Amino acid sequence: MNIVELIKKKRDGKSFSTDEISFLINQFTKCNIPDYQFSALLMAIQIRGMNTDETSALTQSMLNSGKTIDLSKLNGYKIDKHSTGGVGDKTSLIIAPIVAAAGIFVPMISGRGLGHTGGTLDKLESIPGFRTDLSLSESMKVLKKCGAVLIGQTKEIAPADKMIYALRDVTATVESIPLITASIMSKKLAEGIDGLVLDIKTGSGAFMKSQKDSLELANSLINTAKSFDKKVIAFITDMNQPLGSYVGNWLEVYESILVLRGNVKNDLYLLSTRLAGAMIFLGKKAKSLQEGEQIAKEIIENGKALKKFVEIVEMQGGDSHYISDPDKYPQPKYVKKVKVGKDGYIGQINTYQFGMASLELGAGRRKIDDVIDPKAGIIIYKKVGDNIKKGETICELHSDSKPKIKLAEDMILESIKLLKTKPPKQKLFKKIIQ
Amino acid sequence: MNIVELIKKKRDGKSFSTDEISFLINQFTKCNIPDYQFSALLMAIQIRGMNTDETSALTQSMLNSGKTIDLSKLNGYKIDKHSTGGVGDKTSLIIAPIVAAAGIFVPMISGRGLGHTGGTLDKLESIPGFRTDLSLSESMKVLKKCGAVLIGQTKEIAPADKMIYALRDVTATVESIPLITASIMSKKLAEGIDGLVLDIKTGSGAFMKSQKDSLELANSLINTAKSFDKKVIAFITDMNQPLGSYVGNWLEVYESILVLRGNVKNDLYLLSTRLAGAMIFLGKKAKSLQEGEQIAKEIIENGKALKKFVEIVEMQGGDSHYISDPDKYPQPKYVKKVKVGKDGYIGQINTYQFGMASLELGAGRRKIDDVIDPKAGIIIYKKVGDNIKKGETICELHSDSKPKIKLAEDMILESIKLLKTKPPKQKLFKKIIQ
Repeated sequence: MNIVELIKKKRDGKSFSTDEISFLINQFTKCNIPDYQFSALLMAIQIRGMNTDETSALTQSMLNSGKTIDLSKLNGYKIDKHSTGGVGDKTSLIIAPIVAAAGIFVPMISGRGLGHTGGTLDKLESIPGFRTDLSLSESMKVLKKCGAVLIGQTKEIAPADKMIYALRDVTATVESIPLITASIMSKKLAEGIDGLVLDIKTGSGAFMKSQKDSLELANSLINTAKSFDKKVIAFITDMNQPLGSYVGNWLEVYESILVLRGNVKNDLYLLSTRLAGAMIFLGKKAKSLQEGEQIAKEIIENGKALKKFVEIVEMQGGDSHYISDPDKYPQPKYVKKVKVGKDGYIGQINTYQFGMASLELGAGRRKIDDVIDPKAGIIIYKKVGDNIKKGETICELHSDSKPKIKLAEDMILESIKLLKTKPPKQKLFKKIIQ
Repeated sequence: MNIVELIKKKRDGKSFSTDEISFLINQFTKCNIPDYQFSALLMAIQIRGMNTDETSALTQSMLNSGKTIDLSKLNGYKIDKHSTGGVGDKTSLIIAPIVAAAGIFVPMISGRGLGHTGGTLDKLESIPGFRTDLSLSESMKVLKKCGAVLIGQTKEIAPADKMIYALRDVTATVESIPLITASIMSKKLAEGIDGLVLDIKTGSGAFMKSQKDSLELANSLINTAKSFDKKVIAFITDMNQPLGSYVGNWLEVYESILVLRGNVKNDLYLLSTRLAGAMIFLGKKAKSLQEGEQIAKEIIENGKALKKFVEIVEMQGGDSHYISDPDKYPQPKYVKKVKVGKDGYIGQINTYQFGMASLELGAGRRKIDDVIDPKAGIIIYKKVGDNIKKGETICELHSDSKPKIKLAEDMILESIKLLKTKPPKQKLFKKIIQ
């Protein structure tokens, strides 16, 4: 096979065979195709697209580039959740213990924060001692014992994805639906799961800003999961405002503890229990999604969820004192309350900018090797639709840097649009696709 | 300006500003944009295209990347011709002396053969001693004295083009009309010309196989030339069979001598005198294209064209004995007559394959650093529409390698389609655009 002829094929809008895709991924992973040729190919794929068969073949080839975790010896269903990411999205921390407590294995491989979004690994690592870099055999031990493990992508899993993503990031080919699909699914399939619940975010804080694109991604993910005989349910959910009331790494662990304790019943609680419920349903521990959700809520009420979370934290080396007594956690040098200068209703939040403000405070990364401050972030007092009086606090900024607080304050005030009349309520759940 | 944002812009089908294009070419030429980003950009340009303003700006930026020859001290019009290339296309060798003899300066920068096509530089270098690598100051001397000079692209001229072409060649972005336009025009404009005659080939032996694509390229070249205030005339001409009766480097010099002597009045003669006539018209030495063509023919008849050719050859270091007595040229080891096995008419020639057969004989290059044999090539006895009897010779193969002759013979027989009835005559001139 000739690489230039293959690039030409996609350039002209034709479809690849499974063998051609396998050749391309294989040769690129072996460094036999130079970056400058592969990036031209990626751009052709970005513009021309890929059909369902091509996307499945791409997923398979990327999966084949590394190891697959063999969970066949674990007696029970293995179900995972994947969210496309947003601002304040800490559902993994709540869902994993609930679903594990329901008797389902949750082998969760997560990522780090980049740009305006946070990452599960960074949040977990804000718990002193917590290790997300367990080896595969260590992970197996935790999973077997706890029913859940939360780790990062190891070198052994889908190395092709890591190489391709590095190139996509600098060649404006990140937004391609088939490339996103194969990237997500190759890693999820490597976990050895039976089923997957997808949370596709849509709105100003999501990667997919429009509902049309979110729907397209959801369908692509579902088709690919099904082509691998995996059970799958996708939710399209709102990301036009931060999820929950805490943004930042430790702050999100803090809010997760509040939800796991049963103290808070906000949008984060509703989304977490619904997603957990779908996983419980896919894992055959409930006869319907509704029943699954009910079970998830009970597991919070009866304290099993929090107990399981403490168990996971301890098994992964974390100091669980901070879970039982989160207010002991180190405080930031500066806390600043952001107030508005007039009366009104919160109409819109530019959630991308809100996330970037959190990054400025120290909670996020611009580049993959930036260092984050686990204490930095934002506590939100008012959300979309809420009434607010002149001088009242919208949110609270946490940072060790005073100039960063000033910058973030300006960004937050700019990201929020005040209205004179009450706007219609935001719908958290946009669509469910099975 | 951010390179990823610029790639994204073209990816999404938007247009670049002049400043953006200038930034991209500048930074790439300075090696500040890595190949893998520029190749993604090239693919986006290839698929999304560029408008007239963008193409002009691209041409200007590529021109600015190097030096421009200053011909303002030469008293007279400076006109060049550019052909998009094909099989047996040796018109430059005939046109340059005719037009120079008519009192117009012809500062001609040509290329080398690659793939199925030949290159003017290789043909000229088959004349022992002929130098195409003159420095700019040497070239100026020849041009001043002879009225014409035939050289290769120097390092000083449009270096961006060389860098970009190297990348296009391996990333399936060769066929882009705006990229082709800027590549051709940046080099031609660097010659310091007043006007340009374009010969856009169309058909099986051309880069643009369809007349639609040829027309699109012609219009793009004309628009760009006009945006630089250059006078321009474009001819779209047939490349569904080799031009003339000789293919190969020395063989094409040989046929050029026959035409310059006035011994041959075939399609090569017709095309050469018409293109030369258009240059004479643009150079204000004729009141119409027809008159220009008439003057070109007279310059052949009165011997001035051949005399000028000898003068150029000598000024550029070539041994002109081979021009006065071309039959003294070294002969190939093997000459093989290709015959047909049945009666019929030559219906079609796959001219691409015909050119590739010539390459196999030793006349062409697969890669830029392949060595060619100046003696190798094909003499054609029968062309499209000619009647041929069983056992009659279609053409004669020249090579120093017996196995290559066998291979080329098979390719040639495969490239020719015999018909039972006489096909309609091929039109040499398809269209003229002014």
